[in-house]
Amino acid sequence: MTAEDRLAELDIQMPDAPTPFGAYVPAVQTGNLLFLSGMLATSGHTATVVGVVGADLDVKAGREAAYTAALNVLALAKKQLGSLNRVSHVVRLGVYVAATPDFTEHPKVADAASELLRDVFGDQSISSRLVFGVASLPLGSPIELEVILEVQPQG
Amino acid sequence: MTAEDRLAELDIQMPDAPTPFGAYVPAVQTGNLLFLSGMLATSGHTATVVGVVGADLDVKAGREAAYTAALNVLALAKKQLGSLNRVSHVVRLGVYVAATPDFTEHPKVADAASELLRDVFGDQSISSRLVFGVASLPLGSPIELEVILEVQPQG
Amino acid sequence: MTAEDRLAELDIQMPDAPTPFGAYVPAVQTGNLLFLSGMLATSGHTATVVGVVGADLDVKAGREAAYTAALNVLALAKKQLGSLNRVSHVVRLGVYVAATPDFTEHPKVADAASELLRDVFGDQSISSRLVFGVASLPLGSPIELEVILEVQPQG
Repeated sequence: MTAEDRLAELDIQMPDAPTPFGAYVPAVQTGNLLFLSGMLATSGHTATVVGVVGADLDVKAGREAAYTAALNVLALAKKQLGSLNRVSHVVRLGVYVAATPDFTEHPKVADAASELLRDVFGDQSISSRLVFGVASLPLGSPIELEVILEVQPQG
Repeated sequence: MTAEDRLAELDIQMPDAPTPFGAYVPAVQTGNLLFLSGMLATSGHTATVVGVVGADLDVKAGREAAYTAALNVLALAKKQLGSLNRVSHVVRLGVYVAATPDFTEHPKVADAASELLRDVFGDQSISSRLVFGVASLPLGSPIELEVILEVQPQG
Repeated sequence: MTAEDRLAELDIQMPDAPTPFGAYVPAVQTGNLLFLSGMLATSGHTATVVGVVGADLDVKAGREAAYTAALNVLALAKKQLGSLNRVSHVVRLGVYVAATPDFTEHPKVADAASELLRDVFGDQSISSRLVFGVASLPLGSPIELEVILEVQPQG
């Protein structure tokens, strides 16, 4: 099965790919690595949820935000590449959670993004991961995702 | 026009390239990617401004710090490469802002760095970007920049 | 001298390589770059020390945590590659310190990790570096390390 097959089977509603809100581009490819700009829990240029995990938001709300941000990753990757089937590996997933100093369950929040990417790209493409709690994020989003993809040339 | 042409036309006063203050090197090249060490708003080993954006510092002060850090990026890249014309693309710009938990305007701060790099390297080389608010930075700097450059072999 | 020679000479007790506690893999190689997942100050799935540097923990305790996390980097790299001699360069070391807003001595904490990697991989392989203070880390660890290695094919 391909990533596009899995996407169809999971019946995922893809959002529009986020566009930049500043002097940057959505993604840059160098060699066969595609660096995506940071993806937030947004719809258009609006945060779908605002807050800090461990204070305003609990783990469940953090996971929902991580899932939303991961959908934006999929939408952006598809727009950049034409087809998600061109992704040969998710090299790096960074999950940055706006969190309180005493929050410790970042991995549970991050797993909501990791699980969606695994379900779409498959067990052979599971990423390395970097997860930490940040002070605050653009637009008040509780989550930002950093993604580096290994991609194949257009067939 | 080349990056060096644009630099001359913009009449930018380049600082000395920052030197490490710890057990690391200013930059490492692997293949045609040059990873720069984190650049702060510093002159020599002293922060040009100290504080947290959203508390001690406003967006304007954050932008000035981001511009200062971006000048350090240019100075370091030039020292490493001999000429900025060898930069074929700014692959990744990370902008890490020492910010309060309720700060949301990180992109406005980050744009001061993005705009300088765009003005020097050109519209064809605009970076992907990752922006978030951190708890604190070395020396009390309000800004740290992470830069990965795609570079061409020495001509 | 090779990295394995230096490791033996330093008489370092290597821990078991950390295993993931979420939906990710310990490391991903693309081309000759090996991206390691974030390494914490852990033994097994337990933090060896918990706290925020500048509040519960001082610089010395932060350095001990950074050293513990760097041992985990060595253990993971050895498990992934078979031998540390296959590491040709430490391209990037990110040191993320759970720290208070007024903490400024992140480089001193980070040096404990940098110095161990330099002592094992040698002066010719010293990394670029990115250091900042984060709000909180998984399991309450005061330190997380991000490592990208340039590696040689299996001999």
